[in-house]
Amino acid sequence: MAQYQPITEPIRRKIEHELGSECIVTDLKALEIYNRDASELVHSPELVIRPQTVDQIQQLLRLANEHRFPVTPRGAGTGLAGGCLPLLGGVVLSLEAMNRIRCIDSQNLVADVEPGVITKTLRDAVREKGLFYPPDPAGLDKSTIGGNAATNAGGPACVKYGTTKDYVLGLQAVLPDGSLIHTGTKTRKGVVGYDLTHLLIGSEGTLGVITGLTLKLIPHPRAVSGLAAVFEDLQTATHAVTAVMSRGHLPSAIEFMDCRCLTLVGELLPFSIPGQNAALLIVETDGAPDSIRAEIEAIGRICREVGASRILPAPQAEDRDALWHVRRQISLRIHDTSVLYIPEDVAVPLNRIAELVEALPEFEARYNFKIYTFGHAGDGNIHLNITATSRNDLDLVEAGVRAILARVLQMEGTISGEHGVGEAKMRFLPMELSPQSVRLQQSIKRLFDPNLILNPGKIFPDLTPD
Amino acid sequence: MAQYQPITEPIRRKIEHELGSECIVTDLKALEIYNRDASELVHSPELVIRPQTVDQIQQLLRLANEHRFPVTPRGAGTGLAGGCLPLLGGVVLSLEAMNRIRCIDSQNLVADVEPGVITKTLRDAVREKGLFYPPDPAGLDKSTIGGNAATNAGGPACVKYGTTKDYVLGLQAVLPDGSLIHTGTKTRKGVVGYDLTHLLIGSEGTLGVITGLTLKLIPHPRAVSGLAAVFEDLQTATHAVTAVMSRGHLPSAIEFMDCRCLTLVGELLPFSIPGQNAALLIVETDGAPDSIRAEIEAIGRICREVGASRILPAPQAEDRDALWHVRRQISLRIHDTSVLYIPEDVAVPLNRIAELVEALPEFEARYNFKIYTFGHAGDGNIHLNITATSRNDLDLVEAGVRAILARVLQMEGTISGEHGVGEAKMRFLPMELSPQSVRLQQSIKRLFDPNLILNPGKIFPDLTPD
Repeated sequence: MAQYQPITEPIRRKIEHELGSECIVTDLKALEIYNRDASELVHSPELVIRPQTVDQIQQLLRLANEHRFPVTPRGAGTGLAGGCLPLLGGVVLSLEAMNRIRCIDSQNLVADVEPGVITKTLRDAVREKGLFYPPDPAGLDKSTIGGNAATNAGGPACVKYGTTKDYVLGLQAVLPDGSLIHTGTKTRKGVVGYDLTHLLIGSEGTLGVITGLTLKLIPHPRAVSGLAAVFEDLQTATHAVTAVMSRGHLPSAIEFMDCRCLTLVGELLPFSIPGQNAALLIVETDGAPDSIRAEIEAIGRICREVGASRILPAPQAEDRDALWHVRRQISLRIHDTSVLYIPEDVAVPLNRIAELVEALPEFEARYNFKIYTFGHAGDGNIHLNITATSRNDLDLVEAGVRAILARVLQMEGTISGEHGVGEAKMRFLPMELSPQSVRLQQSIKRLFDPNLILNPGKIFPDLTPD
Repeated sequence: MAQYQPITEPIRRKIEHELGSECIVTDLKALEIYNRDASELVHSPELVIRPQTVDQIQQLLRLANEHRFPVTPRGAGTGLAGGCLPLLGGVVLSLEAMNRIRCIDSQNLVADVEPGVITKTLRDAVREKGLFYPPDPAGLDKSTIGGNAATNAGGPACVKYGTTKDYVLGLQAVLPDGSLIHTGTKTRKGVVGYDLTHLLIGSEGTLGVITGLTLKLIPHPRAVSGLAAVFEDLQTATHAVTAVMSRGHLPSAIEFMDCRCLTLVGELLPFSIPGQNAALLIVETDGAPDSIRAEIEAIGRICREVGASRILPAPQAEDRDALWHVRRQISLRIHDTSVLYIPEDVAVPLNRIAELVEALPEFEARYNFKIYTFGHAGDGNIHLNITATSRNDLDLVEAGVRAILARVLQMEGTISGEHGVGEAKMRFLPMELSPQSVRLQQSIKRLFDPNLILNPGKIFPDLTPD
């Protein structure tokens, strides 16, 4: 483990002198939010900096190397893995104030933005110009584009549109040594040199601080339609998913919810739950109005053929909003009704979703927890919301989580589809990555950040400086 | 520059002993093809190895480190930048014989393939299962999937579907030290650790030898339609491109050809060329039959509104095949009618395509060459086919190429949209990448390959070993 210095009063004064006092957050009430994200983890920073300029960030990182204090970049703190928390103390570097949309270029279908822009703000702004920025992580009304890129955030749109990484053409980033780099291009194609853009994306703020993004936009789909399909069991629901896609349909979202989730929000549902293995699919399609009308009808027919007990069409925006409201309420109620809440977000091949979900009761019985399951059926990304009514048996819960992740890996899945590793999944990382891969990635980290000052203690266990 | 050893007879015998004699190519006629690709560059290997197994590749790279000889991976040799040529001698490692499609999984919409699979073979095989692998580089009937990934090959489909990198979920690769690594996932989402998959993609065989790929597939579009639009000038044609896309249409291809290209194939055209600044657009859309019929009509109307002098509908496959045949003939005739042929493939923002093309006569006059221009108008990737009728003035041509690339960079473009750097563009790379970026990328290269045995002398000028 690297040796870090505390932010002493002289160091603090030096930071203030070089960066200016206006970017140092001193309001105690404001400071409280910076020790948490959307996980249950808590780590307090010694100092919070909210810069307005790239130059201030460069200065800060130079000082961090000189005085050996950690710097942890942070967007809106909506992550679920503790990735933006100052695990080893030091400075939290909040990018919130760098939140300008520099340009939305509707002729070239690109946007140039600062990292602190709220995802929904960008989506709304480009929508006004007839354009579409597809990535839609659950927290998009709070999360920032920079945070989305740092974690390669996903969402329901992935099945058709991919994740954040598929919409970043280029980055401006401050490297751990304080130097500024531009990666990628402003064009859709570009093959000059190594793909540093994608190396930074998903590196969870450990390789550089993203200070600007060139984003790819596409024409906004002219219309959206949707439906909900009720099934008596989840296996049939996932058969419907593969049947829909293998017959040439590519919906813009296919979400599922298991029976427990449905039971939690029973009074909101416009149907009665058909038995205790029931499952719901929400399907959306987008495109030209005529074709999506035909397409959603065809998808409804396929669902019926495969065995759906009921199809609820959702042609209007308000119908679909009601469905997504149900989905959001499930998350909130799971959180509110549990003493212990662990949000795992594994992904498995599509045809093994049912197999995994069917195996869960066995884990629940053995490890004494209860799992609510919903997720992105179109891309295999399943949110296993593991809950317990007491915190007494944390070791048992931990063993249970580990056992589930091991099963997921046996199924050729991954332990994290979109949340990232951060601190929360760090101890499980060696289950998925080979020692050879971990060593290589650690050496990349050391290459970028020999003093390990940028977001240290994350992703890789037992990393030591050069 | 690293010091390399020649492949002496004892080293050759050692390679034969460890890898087996059957993978050593000795047929002199066969050997002749390995000193060329589709550029004008020529470099002869000392030895050509065509392995059947990953293990043989691992052995070869261990021997290369032990005896310090270069190893240059090669797919089908269809590249235009000399990326697969053994610039510094040593072994050419042909992946042609590792050409199995291991699995096409239509339930999970992925394919698992070896690197030597021909791109078209894969596209045809997944088509039979109702699936689609979109990347369509010009040489797809010869090029290999491994080569496509190593160069991040593009093509006309990029405007709607992206490039090769957007369809590689995971890789198996042998690193320069001979160790085997798996990157990425078999699922559409996955955020565990750094994105080594995209670091290897586009690295042109300098960071690892790709020995297996997990590819993302999508449902095959149910129908395709198209049209050709004739314009009296290129500026109007590119206005049509941005008008089409900003009104919500996302064609699956938008190609353009300038007047010189059209003149070359005049007798093949089903229209007369309207003046000496004329330009042709070929547009394709894919999707549901009804909607694409409506969409291609709408696109035709937009082209007319913007100023197309003629629209030639191409609803049937044979109509579109005829258009693509024209496009291919242009390439062949340019090549055949020139003594010197330099295929540049810059990309610029869409709304600057016309500006660049209009500037070309000035460069032609000054540097005494002739440029045929066609390309992917939907993504700004322009093939500048620079030709001359003699090789006497190579210095002047070189100066002209450099001047054009400088103009492209002023326009916020890139010097290579899809061909890659290889040897052909290496000397221009510092025009686009900052010294800081080059140093970082060189240090990544040294981290992966401290002895610089894998495809040395490429991409970065003046790289020295650790």
